[in-house]
Amino acid sequence: MPLRLYDLCGADDLRFSPYCARAKMALALKGLAYETVPVPFTGIAAIAGGGHATVPVLEDGDRRVSDSFAIAEYLEDRHPEPPIFAPGPAGRAAARFVEGALFGIVHAAAMPIVGKTIHDRLQPADQPYFRETREAKLGRSLEAAHADRESRLPEARKLFFPLRHTLARSAWFGGDRPLYVDAVVYGTAHWLHAVNDADWFAGDPTLTDWFERCRAIVGAGAPA
Amino acid sequence: MPLRLYDLCGADDLRFSPYCARAKMALALKGLAYETVPVPFTGIAAIAGGGHATVPVLEDGDRRVSDSFAIAEYLEDRHPEPPIFAPGPAGRAAARFVEGALFGIVHAAAMPIVGKTIHDRLQPADQPYFRETREAKLGRSLEAAHADRESRLPEARKLFFPLRHTLARSAWFGGDRPLYVDAVVYGTAHWLHAVNDADWFAGDPTLTDWFERCRAIVGAGAPA
Repeated sequence: MPLRLYDLCGADDLRFSPYCARAKMALALKGLAYETVPVPFTGIAAIAGGGHATVPVLEDGDRRVSDSFAIAEYLEDRHPEPPIFAPGPAGRAAARFVEGALFGIVHAAAMPIVGKTIHDRLQPADQPYFRETREAKLGRSLEAAHADRESRLPEARKLFFPLRHTLARSAWFGGDRPLYVDAVVYGTAHWLHAVNDADWFAGDPTLTDWFERCRAIVGAGAPA
Repeated sequence: MPLRLYDLCGADDLRFSPYCARAKMALALKGLAYETVPVPFTGIAAIAGGGHATVPVLEDGDRRVSDSFAIAEYLEDRHPEPPIFAPGPAGRAAARFVEGALFGIVHAAAMPIVGKTIHDRLQPADQPYFRETREAKLGRSLEAAHADRESRLPEARKLFFPLRHTLARSAWFGGDRPLYVDAVVYGTAHWLHAVNDADWFAGDPTLTDWFERCRAIVGAGAPA
């Protein structure tokens, strides 16, 4: 039985979730075949009979694993080759730092820019849930945040500094080959580009080239 | 001949530079004895006959190495045990990401908060250089930035999210033992606390405990 990934979807089957994209790149880096099951936000509670609050959920026979980082660790344990974490506790800590920087800083700064666009690309049944939860975090309406997006974009782009700083010196965030840290950054980049046509990388060839290499990895591993 | 570190100093011999603090923790992690030579900003150009634009500068006999990251790599090459980078290109890339996140995001957000306080703690001869270069970056006077500091502090604290996220799961940024990535974060934490009495970590016990453990390492290795 192939691995199955419950994968967030919007209208027109748009697959935009950064966390699901991370899981897909982790699967692709492991060379594992998988199929995806599209799930809207309002479908998450019904996955596999209930008990899951978020996607991605990876189903491996009778086992189900939630949370993108936990999925990557599960794959590393079950399929050690090729490794997707640098060795030992240092490798996990490095990946956690990158995860924290993207979630706590980049996603936080991007949400006002992309919130309304995501909302508009969701299935209608998902829109009230998304609006309510995201407006509570933003402290204002999606529309009010959207009105500022052009002025916020240059500040958000500055937050890619650690990405440029790293890729100026190595081909991958994993050093000389892609690791789960690359999947973490890829997931964020995928999310931003999937939901919003802003020129996020402002033509930076280092970021653009790295992103294309990640897309090729994920595309080669993706279900038909 | 002991290793010698040219170390930025303010008035009353205040040693506040984040980059010099990183070099000191790297030396302490290696268990290497060193002496420091205090240098004000306006003294950097005269170090060892000239040719250096920044501190720290590490002097090892006839060799001189500039730049905190290059100093850490030099120490790793010359004194491999104990290692202060996780192995291979992945370890260097992980340290570069942390360096980039702190320089490009945390330092950028902190400078408006700490700029005037640093200025006031410098030797008088350094103050015009510091004011001119920092006000050019800030786009306004040190005093104007200082007036906003209380309102900016909560936003700056949010940028510590990746620190908390990592230390919630491992004792050190290096995983189960301190590595140069810890020195990178320590340097920033030292800088913020040395120049400004703001409650940067807001009493967060995870950050505070880690910082005290770093201080103990640096203190144990410091020149008398």
